[in-house]
Amino acid sequence: MCALPADLGAQVDAALREDIGSGDVTARLVPLEQQVRGTIITREDAVLCGCAWADETFRRLDPRVQLSWQAADGARLTPGEVICRIAGPARPVLTGERTALNFLQLLSATATQARRFVDAVAGTGCRILDTRKTLPGLRSAQKYAVRCGGADNHRMGLYDRVLIKENHIVAAGTIGGAIAAARSDAPGIPVEVEVETLGELREALAARPDIVMLDEFSLEDMRAAVALNRLHGGGLRLEASGGVSLETVRAIAATGVDYVSVGGLTKHVQAVDLSMRLTFSVDLRKAP
Amino acid sequence: MCALPADLGAQVDAALREDIGSGDVTARLVPLEQQVRGTIITREDAVLCGCAWADETFRRLDPRVQLSWQAADGARLTPGEVICRIAGPARPVLTGERTALNFLQLLSATATQARRFVDAVAGTGCRILDTRKTLPGLRSAQKYAVRCGGADNHRMGLYDRVLIKENHIVAAGTIGGAIAAARSDAPGIPVEVEVETLGELREALAARPDIVMLDEFSLEDMRAAVALNRLHGGGLRLEASGGVSLETVRAIAATGVDYVSVGGLTKHVQAVDLSMRLTFSVDLRKAP
Amino acid sequence: MCALPADLGAQVDAALREDIGSGDVTARLVPLEQQVRGTIITREDAVLCGCAWADETFRRLDPRVQLSWQAADGARLTPGEVICRIAGPARPVLTGERTALNFLQLLSATATQARRFVDAVAGTGCRILDTRKTLPGLRSAQKYAVRCGGADNHRMGLYDRVLIKENHIVAAGTIGGAIAAARSDAPGIPVEVEVETLGELREALAARPDIVMLDEFSLEDMRAAVALNRLHGGGLRLEASGGVSLETVRAIAATGVDYVSVGGLTKHVQAVDLSMRLTFSVDLRKAP
Amino acid sequence: MCALPADLGAQVDAALREDIGSGDVTARLVPLEQQVRGTIITREDAVLCGCAWADETFRRLDPRVQLSWQAADGARLTPGEVICRIAGPARPVLTGERTALNFLQLLSATATQARRFVDAVAGTGCRILDTRKTLPGLRSAQKYAVRCGGADNHRMGLYDRVLIKENHIVAAGTIGGAIAAARSDAPGIPVEVEVETLGELREALAARPDIVMLDEFSLEDMRAAVALNRLHGGGLRLEASGGVSLETVRAIAATGVDYVSVGGLTKHVQAVDLSMRLTFSVDLRKAP
Amino acid sequence: MCALPADLGAQVDAALREDIGSGDVTARLVPLEQQVRGTIITREDAVLCGCAWADETFRRLDPRVQLSWQAADGARLTPGEVICRIAGPARPVLTGERTALNFLQLLSATATQARRFVDAVAGTGCRILDTRKTLPGLRSAQKYAVRCGGADNHRMGLYDRVLIKENHIVAAGTIGGAIAAARSDAPGIPVEVEVETLGELREALAARPDIVMLDEFSLEDMRAAVALNRLHGGGLRLEASGGVSLETVRAIAATGVDYVSVGGLTKHVQAVDLSMRLTFSVDLRKAP
Amino acid sequence: MCALPADLGAQVDAALREDIGSGDVTARLVPLEQQVRGTIITREDAVLCGCAWADETFRRLDPRVQLSWQAADGARLTPGEVICRIAGPARPVLTGERTALNFLQLLSATATQARRFVDAVAGTGCRILDTRKTLPGLRSAQKYAVRCGGADNHRMGLYDRVLIKENHIVAAGTIGGAIAAARSDAPGIPVEVEVETLGELREALAARPDIVMLDEFSLEDMRAAVALNRLHGGGLRLEASGGVSLETVRAIAATGVDYVSVGGLTKHVQAVDLSMRLTFSVDLRKAP
Repeated sequence: MCALPADLGAQVDAALREDIGSGDVTARLVPLEQQVRGTIITREDAVLCGCAWADETFRRLDPRVQLSWQAADGARLTPGEVICRIAGPARPVLTGERTALNFLQLLSATATQARRFVDAVAGTGCRILDTRKTLPGLRSAQKYAVRCGGADNHRMGLYDRVLIKENHIVAAGTIGGAIAAARSDAPGIPVEVEVETLGELREALAARPDIVMLDEFSLEDMRAAVALNRLHGGGLRLEASGGVSLETVRAIAATGVDYVSVGGLTKHVQAVDLSMRLTFSVDLRKAP
Repeated sequence: MCALPADLGAQVDAALREDIGSGDVTARLVPLEQQVRGTIITREDAVLCGCAWADETFRRLDPRVQLSWQAADGARLTPGEVICRIAGPARPVLTGERTALNFLQLLSATATQARRFVDAVAGTGCRILDTRKTLPGLRSAQKYAVRCGGADNHRMGLYDRVLIKENHIVAAGTIGGAIAAARSDAPGIPVEVEVETLGELREALAARPDIVMLDEFSLEDMRAAVALNRLHGGGLRLEASGGVSLETVRAIAATGVDYVSVGGLTKHVQAVDLSMRLTFSVDLRKAP
Repeated sequence: MCALPADLGAQVDAALREDIGSGDVTARLVPLEQQVRGTIITREDAVLCGCAWADETFRRLDPRVQLSWQAADGARLTPGEVICRIAGPARPVLTGERTALNFLQLLSATATQARRFVDAVAGTGCRILDTRKTLPGLRSAQKYAVRCGGADNHRMGLYDRVLIKENHIVAAGTIGGAIAAARSDAPGIPVEVEVETLGELREALAARPDIVMLDEFSLEDMRAAVALNRLHGGGLRLEASGGVSLETVRAIAATGVDYVSVGGLTKHVQAVDLSMRLTFSVDLRKAP
Repeated sequence: MCALPADLGAQVDAALREDIGSGDVTARLVPLEQQVRGTIITREDAVLCGCAWADETFRRLDPRVQLSWQAADGARLTPGEVICRIAGPARPVLTGERTALNFLQLLSATATQARRFVDAVAGTGCRILDTRKTLPGLRSAQKYAVRCGGADNHRMGLYDRVLIKENHIVAAGTIGGAIAAARSDAPGIPVEVEVETLGELREALAARPDIVMLDEFSLEDMRAAVALNRLHGGGLRLEASGGVSLETVRAIAATGVDYVSVGGLTKHVQAVDLSMRLTFSVDLRKAP
Repeated sequence: MCALPADLGAQVDAALREDIGSGDVTARLVPLEQQVRGTIITREDAVLCGCAWADETFRRLDPRVQLSWQAADGARLTPGEVICRIAGPARPVLTGERTALNFLQLLSATATQARRFVDAVAGTGCRILDTRKTLPGLRSAQKYAVRCGGADNHRMGLYDRVLIKENHIVAAGTIGGAIAAARSDAPGIPVEVEVETLGELREALAARPDIVMLDEFSLEDMRAAVALNRLHGGGLRLEASGGVSLETVRAIAATGVDYVSVGGLTKHVQAVDLSMRLTFSVDLRKAP
Repeated sequence: MCALPADLGAQVDAALREDIGSGDVTARLVPLEQQVRGTIITREDAVLCGCAWADETFRRLDPRVQLSWQAADGARLTPGEVICRIAGPARPVLTGERTALNFLQLLSATATQARRFVDAVAGTGCRILDTRKTLPGLRSAQKYAVRCGGADNHRMGLYDRVLIKENHIVAAGTIGGAIAAARSDAPGIPVEVEVETLGELREALAARPDIVMLDEFSLEDMRAAVALNRLHGGGLRLEASGGVSLETVRAIAATGVDYVSVGGLTKHVQAVDLSMRLTFSVDLRKAP
């Protein structure tokens, strides 16, 4: 559903390289011609994510391994549900099993967590955003998982949004000066300003960035911020940030902010419990 | 303290590439010659890990950035503790801040979790092991973090240990046959056998692998397994595996098994809450 | 001034690799200890771009080569002007000369062409944009050069803007449907719609994308489009595209459109005529 | 016709990576199963080049995309001519369209320019050469395009020909000394000497390099050089270099020199105006 | 039979890149549609190794090239024996011929040498080991070849075994201290100690490493070492090292040591004399 | 003396990666601050080659390691001679020791073998050539070593010389036709023709390639070939090939051929016996 990143292949390569190293010393205990059938199932509720990474894992090991997905990225899974049927030569299936599951359990974890936050704010009109607090080398994959979970991506990196903080404001003299400098340096790129008080928000409203990040505001101040923004025509989008949890997110969303950004979507990982169950054909005992 | 992996540099490269992309559009709002000083602090109890990854991050951006570590990998940190002092040109510090923190918060998380399990079994003589359930592309870094946390590495990948499961035993006819095949195929490489019952353990004891993994044994069966092993001279090392948590690990260790392996050490991540606090020199307002 | 892309180093590596191959067979005719001084000059009017690529070229060959830039990226140069003074061991200077000049002559060409278009529309308030018609492997470098020339970047790639064309509209049924699908699929990412007639523009105005591209409109139709947009509150940004040249761009800008995008900025290259002039020390005749 | 370079695949990879980044956010507006047919046509006279790069682009995205070339690299094209028929799933076709065209418009530009120079000297027996003034990272591709345009490659890089200039002669004492040093250092590799006067040419003739480059000679001096070479048996090949344009090249060729080298073949690019026209099947409205 | 290393593909890529460079200028003298059939034969006695590298070479050039192996890695070959039948388009066969043969002649050489040493100690129970004295970049391939030849791999690199030498013992004060430090730093990783005298061996026996390397021991001292080890229960494995040749290896093995490690297995290469014989179809003269 | 290849850095990277893997588990038994001094010596007569590879190895591990070479690439070494003095922190010296020695022992082996063949033909005027029978991934390094040994490089790869064999002649109809096709396809690139009889040589002489390879000619036929070539003006260079050994090479050279090409220069490796001897400072016992 969502767009796949260009470095998917490189991520799979790296994972296979670190796992296989000088060679899989166990898989060849199984006869070369041994065929296998199996399923990938989930043992807990989850949102599925990472099918393309699993496909690519087996495609690189042996194109004869066939995966037949029973659910797509973004689907809600229930315990015991079969996600995928797999069939093919036993050796590459055994060699790729852990790598494929590692991708699926990680990316489904991120998608699941995103979905939990999205569900928690359902009906408020508020959108959940991720951050740049991601696992090194896996950002594009995790950002994809966030989208599969129904949340939105904040900036992908340092290149696609200006985020003005206190230091930049001091450097430029005023919020307005900092925004003007940003617009001039990086035209066409969205400009966001982080504010810590309602006073700073007032200054920001005058300077017209694209988004204002309300950093660690109380719920009361958030509501005041939303009202203030409406007074000024409501043109600014407001993003609440800092210390957001599943317990607090709905109250934050209910203040009327447009976005809540949640570092925990991608920096914490509660891997989804998946497993692959395999059945070998009857001729297993025939040595190679 | 522990040995650094050869792909540290490649991991840092990938992280900087995905974050910087076509260029950091915010850092240059700060004057080119602006200098900065700062500290990295922890906001929670943790075991530190990842200093070399942070060093490398800034070294690649600008060798003039100076990091002075106040604690070493493996050190126990308390909330508010200063981990590192940093000084240098402001732009590369701002550009590298998130990448360095992402490595530190992830690897410290893994080291911290390892330490928690190690502490939980303190005095039992039992060792905590990790598994191959790691974040794709980050295995060598996470395995390093596990060592910094005082736990031990199970196999690094498919290449440095044979792990015989039911399917291989079926293929070989008997446990003894499977082990003999493994020894012949991969001489000098440790051979581990996974057993699910005491009956299988008896068979394994006769076949003399290096290690036996007791898969989802009850505590009672684990104790019986330890006793059985002693009866046979105690030459086998026993590893308990499956469904281990901080709550259950001490009881498992107390059964007398040599190792407990814990997938959750590396597949789950509860990022340590770190932050970088920066102070700019007084000449910040001078435009570039 | 502008932000440097993360793949600068990889671009320099590739260029040195393809030029040096199995080894520079000429440079070693010069004695190993021979020192050299020189200048890089321009033989024609130009906007300078690429200093960091040249720096990196020599840094990789021999860090002892010193470059002292007399002008910065974005500076306007006049014929005969000295851009850079260079000093160091003769061999790496000779080995890197062509690679450094190739980057400078290409990127200055793109910056110069951007500057010409920007100057041609000076005072109109209209901004010049580049496109994705770039030299393969050099996009981030050329996009940087465009910024150095005073123009703005259109999307960097397929990932940072949705661009809806006729086919997508047919797929979605209506322009409004296509935009709604895009907003839902890629929240937070700007959406642009390409229209070919005023009728389509009217439909687009109702659907509220972020930008509308007026594809091959006549000047008259562009003026009508600007008027129409104002009637609807002026909220849309209008981008003129198709068949733009230095001769026609000012008239297009004068119609009141916000942007003109110019494929020729990056797909055509009229390399700036630069040269490096070297003076060897008097001890040149001493053989190695 | 000509030999394809080994780094073709790496060039296509880099181009797709920079264009797709975190994912194509537009292509998925088209239904997953949508099929498409289309053509690549030229809008101007050109020499075709780059078919293998376009093939590889789509092969990497989706092997089901079928390209059927109506002309081969090196073919002369007329405006409106269909170069290629394309058919397959719509999404990968849309994702790869720009990358494939970017390769074709660049390489055809270089081939076309080479052909223009070759045609300009038709019948004189003089051959057109390229130089090392190429686009960084694209040298092997541009050198291939030069061959497709009927011209010849000068050296590929610093590794396959010694090119002795004034500095080397000063270092060695005499032209003869420099050539002897080169022959001794790099036996089997052609040695070329650059001369700036007829006096230097005389010295060079005695020293017997493989080629002499006449740097910025007047037409009169070139004719004298050709005569001088014949007097000495004609064993040397003479290459005219410096300030060559389409207007001047025939007169230069007519002087009897063996080669004219033209930096503008590869450092300047006048991209050929190509476009891809697509027709979607009737079931386009079916959502995925 | 043995497990293939993960960097096989990267090794083939590097080999093709260095051989093809800017393009194979000879293969295209053969018509594009020309088909070819052929065989790879050996001209001398050898143990075959490298089939997967040859397969991968042709797969990357053109998947239509078909290889049909008549023997598998590890097979003993006699002069004139056909190893492989090959069929497919002539150009990729000619382009890949040398690269495929270079892998086969190198890896078969290593396998053959390993086999010679293994045969020389047949019946003694002693095993032959390789070392880290390998060809840079080819270690995983050569270690694979050693296994195909019937010998065993010593450590793959610095990461999978601790090897304590004199310097480490000095640093730790005693052999026991060094082993304790190693066990504590790198739990689970085998520890080997190098000793140069029987006195050091006695100290080592008390400290219980996994293996002891007897460095340049006389045959007499080796026998004494074996006896001493038996006196202590025989728990240690003994490895003889230093100055081992095909002439001396059997006498060494007969002393009762468990292993003999031989640097010459991988640092010396006596390439096996292989050749590819091709037959072109009758329509060879038809030009493309 | 000879030109270093561009992929030296990549070769060192690959070698360190395969040796260090997940980390050097032995080096850290030595205290972090321990300093070391040492020498690299040769135990046998050899020609030195590979200094730059050793330099790069230690530079990548720790720039504080200092190497002071006592001899340069190409120098003749005698047993016991000190090649290099080394000083610096003990850990990186120990980590890089084997990798540096592996490069030096391999490249010196190739240089030494080249020198032996060159010495064997001293005074005949005949030059020794290498072939494409090289170790995969190490061609540029081995070709460099061949030059250091005083021999010359035959073609680097498939890209820098056309080598016409029987199959191409059949395809083109005649030798003359094949050469004409080659000259037309790859102008500027040397053309060599392989002949197996004097009759074929006569045909080749008429067709004027740059070089003729006499494949497995008898000494008598070689002499006849040299005479025939002189009769035709001596314009062709003759290369003897096939079955050349140190015993036979002088007789071949004495026939008057210009070149003898020797596959054994690069496909066989008799590693030079080098070792590194280290002395630790007195404070070795201080633990880290």
